[in-house]
Amino acid sequence: VHTSELSADAVERGEYRHYMLKEIFEQPRAVADTLEGRIASDRILPNIFGVKSDELLRRVRHVQIVACGTSYHAGMVARYWLEGLAGIPCSIEVASEYRYRQAVVPADSLFLAISQSGETADTLAALREGRQHGYLGSFAICNVPESSLVRESDLVLMTRAGPEIGVASTKAFTTQLAALALLVLELARMNGLAEERYLRLVNDLSTLPRRIADALELAPQIAELAERFVHKHHALFLGRGVNFPVALEGALKLKEISYIHAEGYPAGELKHGPLALVDEDMPVIAVAPNNQLLEKLKSNLEEVRARGGELFVIADDEVRIDSDGVRGALIKVNSGGNLIAPAVFTVPLQLLAYHVAVLRGTDVDQPRNLAKSVTVE
Amino acid sequence: VHTSELSADAVERGEYRHYMLKEIFEQPRAVADTLEGRIASDRILPNIFGVKSDELLRRVRHVQIVACGTSYHAGMVARYWLEGLAGIPCSIEVASEYRYRQAVVPADSLFLAISQSGETADTLAALREGRQHGYLGSFAICNVPESSLVRESDLVLMTRAGPEIGVASTKAFTTQLAALALLVLELARMNGLAEERYLRLVNDLSTLPRRIADALELAPQIAELAERFVHKHHALFLGRGVNFPVALEGALKLKEISYIHAEGYPAGELKHGPLALVDEDMPVIAVAPNNQLLEKLKSNLEEVRARGGELFVIADDEVRIDSDGVRGALIKVNSGGNLIAPAVFTVPLQLLAYHVAVLRGTDVDQPRNLAKSVTVE
Repeated sequence: VHTSELSADAVERGEYRHYMLKEIFEQPRAVADTLEGRIASDRILPNIFGVKSDELLRRVRHVQIVACGTSYHAGMVARYWLEGLAGIPCSIEVASEYRYRQAVVPADSLFLAISQSGETADTLAALREGRQHGYLGSFAICNVPESSLVRESDLVLMTRAGPEIGVASTKAFTTQLAALALLVLELARMNGLAEERYLRLVNDLSTLPRRIADALELAPQIAELAERFVHKHHALFLGRGVNFPVALEGALKLKEISYIHAEGYPAGELKHGPLALVDEDMPVIAVAPNNQLLEKLKSNLEEVRARGGELFVIADDEVRIDSDGVRGALIKVNSGGNLIAPAVFTVPLQLLAYHVAVLRGTDVDQPRNLAKSVTVE
Repeated sequence: VHTSELSADAVERGEYRHYMLKEIFEQPRAVADTLEGRIASDRILPNIFGVKSDELLRRVRHVQIVACGTSYHAGMVARYWLEGLAGIPCSIEVASEYRYRQAVVPADSLFLAISQSGETADTLAALREGRQHGYLGSFAICNVPESSLVRESDLVLMTRAGPEIGVASTKAFTTQLAALALLVLELARMNGLAEERYLRLVNDLSTLPRRIADALELAPQIAELAERFVHKHHALFLGRGVNFPVALEGALKLKEISYIHAEGYPAGELKHGPLALVDEDMPVIAVAPNNQLLEKLKSNLEEVRARGGELFVIADDEVRIDSDGVRGALIKVNSGGNLIAPAVFTVPLQLLAYHVAVLRGTDVDQPRNLAKSVTVE
């Protein structure tokens, strides 16, 4: 039994109707705290990953990410970054699958575990199992300093989200993305990312709290939009590339607290099955960043439109989408570039899930059947 | 334009009401044809993968699988096998994601593409893209000899399912699993799988047509069970390990042809979100093989039961599950061991999707919005 030293202040709802809403709005501060003292002059400060970290990280030639639920989605984002920016091959798997199969550990592989509580049973078991299998070392991204995960990992980068009370994780996710970005950028720098690009990306990362604050201003618009989901039983979330995990996370939020059966899909798989489900009763929510994948996503969106589906697009400010004849809505937000876009685009999806749940009258902070930390298998 | 040389016979429905049903029942023959001339005396015959294959396959130290839809699920099964039996690290990704990101190719990696038609646009594009990135070579598992995929790959192993007319893939999937098992067992033998185990697994594989035929005898029981799904709008499919992709495939079939929103999940992730959806209106279908994961799956099933969910368990003959107080049904089938279990367990799930769709009156062979081969992006 452990007595928490948290101040009462940190766990009060204050002006907010639910902890979840409070935690959504705490994200600019939580992400800023996670980046605080870790970046200066567009560079990541040395040794923020602990002493000896430099030596270990320089040897990494493969990363195995293991996590569950929302943390798994954060890891999925990091996989796109690691391969794209650091040139390091990365595998990711849900902890309950990883721990029970005979996985092969590539040479010079880093075991990267992500867990808000640091007590997620499957993730801890996978970490302990991994110790037998010749990893270079283990790295934890975690929100609770006194947790088992932190104690048992070689290197640690704490998220500083503060206590998260709502069962549906929000600020833990965006701070995990911030922490993962720090790790990936450090690995990328060690592995030859061009200096100019490195500096620009670190700078992009430092703007994340502000971008999230801007995205939070969408709240009234999203609250209004939520009314169109109240009587829905299904939803499909689509994304591509680094925003595919954002689609999964948006669907998970809606599932967890509104009990709407929402499912996330990589947009390119739409034609391989889920398109059969799309009709006027199945709204589609697409994350359409302003990058090379936009044109591709547009053609998927055309299909949804052609089938009478209602279409909600979360897009970058600069995106131009022809909305003639579309039933649905276009929500614009300044994504701040590909590195931080996943965290920024997540915010309107969190708000959507929250407002739909409130309208449906569910127990937002304590959704049925779910616990905050899954400390048993 | 290509004139097909298929006999009219091969593409007629005969006594069956739908092509899909015909194709489900053709599986024992289709899998037997796929194994025909490739196994003798419990050994895989030399050079069935083509001349020069031996030299190339011996150098493989990593496998990258790329596919879409149902073929992607077959690849997911192969990943568990490759790491567990051959000790070769394996990555898998849907083609539409793989082709557009900056993936890192590990040393001595084999590019393994799976496509029934061999014309799947994203899979072909990924193959062509991969050619620029230093793979050892490419290997195609395909059902159409004259396809682009077959022409453009270094090594090929044909499935011999015969023409598949139903849009929802059935015999293509089980023959892909048979072909993948041949490849994995060959790689496993080259990489030190114990002789005795190798011989036993090849023997298990050769029993697959008979096991599938046995599973098909469940048809009347499943047809009856289907009546309990007719008015459902949702379903959750659960599996663990090598049967997690089976759960995904079962969900995809139901989605494609019955338009029921079915979703597949690794059973261990249930508590991280989807359990919130489970109530008396959300049936849960679980694949529970007789192996070390069964006990784990049982605890997940307890949760579903405790929440009033209706529970359908597809289990091995030898499995004992306490069915006191369970709303639902237990369907038993002889899975024939862990290697072939995924193909065997898939059969009742195909039958379930088929019978539910017939009862709902959908166009089984031509489900709305879907095409047989996705030859455009």
